Amino acid sequence: MTCQPIRHPVRILGIDPGLRRTGWGVIEIDGNRLTFVGCGSVEPSDSLPLASRLLAIHEGLAAVLGDLKPVEAAVEQTFVNKDGVATLKLGQARGVAMLAPAMFGISVAEYAPNQVKKTVVGAGHADKNQILAMLKILLPKAEPKSADAADALAIAITHAHHRGSAALRLKVVGI
Amino acid sequence: MTCQPIRHPVRILGIDPGLRRTGWGVIEIDGNRLTFVGCGSVEPSDSLPLASRLLAIHEGLAAVLGDLKPVEAAVEQTFVNKDGVATLKLGQARGVAMLAPAMFGISVAEYAPNQVKKTVVGAGHADKNQILAMLKILLPKAEPKSADAADALAIAITHAHHRGSAALRLKVVGI
Repeated sequence: MTCQPIRHPVRILGIDPGLRRTGWGVIEIDGNRLTFVGCGSVEPSDSLPLASRLLAIHEGLAAVLGDLKPVEAAVEQTFVNKDGVATLKLGQARGVAMLAPAMFGISVAEYAPNQVKKTVVGAGHADKNQILAMLKILLPKAEPKSADAADALAIAITHAHHRGSAALRLKVVGI
Repeated sequence: MTCQPIRHPVRILGIDPGLRRTGWGVIEIDGNRLTFVGCGSVEPSDSLPLASRLLAIHEGLAAVLGDLKPVEAAVEQTFVNKDGVATLKLGQARGVAMLAPAMFGISVAEYAPNQVKKTVVGAGHADKNQILAMLKILLPKAEPKSADAADALAIAITHAHHRGSAALRLKVVGI
C-alpha cells in the first residue's frame, strides 16, 4: 500500500479576455500528462452597444463552461498602461470573463504574463511564435485559430503547472 | 379622441459601479411624476478573491433586477484618470454591473457625470451636497444610506429625463 493519492484528470479553462476578442482554451491534466480539449474565441460585433458586447462574452464563456465542464480556471494578470480608455475597456471584458467561472462555482487563478511565458517556453520574454511552437509540442492536437485562443491555452497550461503548489499552499495555511 | 399615447409607469435602475461599493437605485416615472422604489449598495468584502467580489456584485444586482423588475437601466460614463490600477478595478466592476441588466434583457444607457449633475441640480459642476438636497426634493421618500446609492438614484433620474428623447432618436433613425 502506498501513500500516493488517487489522481483524477482535472479540466482547466484558460481565458484571455478582451472586448473585441476573448480567447478561451480548455485542457485536461492527469498527473504530468496534458490533453487538449478545445479552444476558440468570442468576438462580439463592435457595432453592438457595450452591454450587449459584454453579454456576448458572458454567453460565449458560459456555453464553454456548460459544455466542457472545466473545474478550475485561470486568467492572465493585466498590464496597466497609460492608455486609460484601453485599460477601462479591457477591465470591463476582464470583469465579465472572471465572473463566468465564478457563477459556475469555479475559482479563478491569476498569472503574470511573464510567468505564463516562462512556464510554456522557459523564458519570461518569449515572443508569440515561440509560444505557438511550444503549444504544438505540448498540445499537438490543438490548432488555435486566433492569437487569443493560443494565449488562453498557454494560461491554462501555466495553471496546470502551478495549481499543485497553489493547492498545497492553501492546505498548509488552512484556507 | 386624442392622439395621446397611453402612459405606463416605467421602472428604471440606476447603477454606480465600484469594486468596493456598487450603488443601485430604482425609481418609477409616470409622465412627469417620479416615485422612489428602492436603493442600496453591494459591498463585497475586500478580503475575497477578485472573482468572488465580482460574483457578489453580480448577485446583488441580479437580486435587485429580479425583485424590483426595472425595465430600463443606466450607468454613469467613467472618468478615465492616470491611475491605471484604479481604472482597471473600476472597469472590472463596471463590466459586471452592465452585464446584469443585459442578462435580464434590459438595455443600459450611459450618461456623462456632468450630464447627471446638470439634470439633477441644473449645473454641470454641482457638488455631492447639492445632489443630495435635490434628491430630497425629487424623491422625498428616498433615504440613501451611502453616497453610491445616492449617485445611483441621480443616474436613474437622469435616464428618466432623457429616455424619451433617446427613444425618439432611435425611432427616427430606425434602429
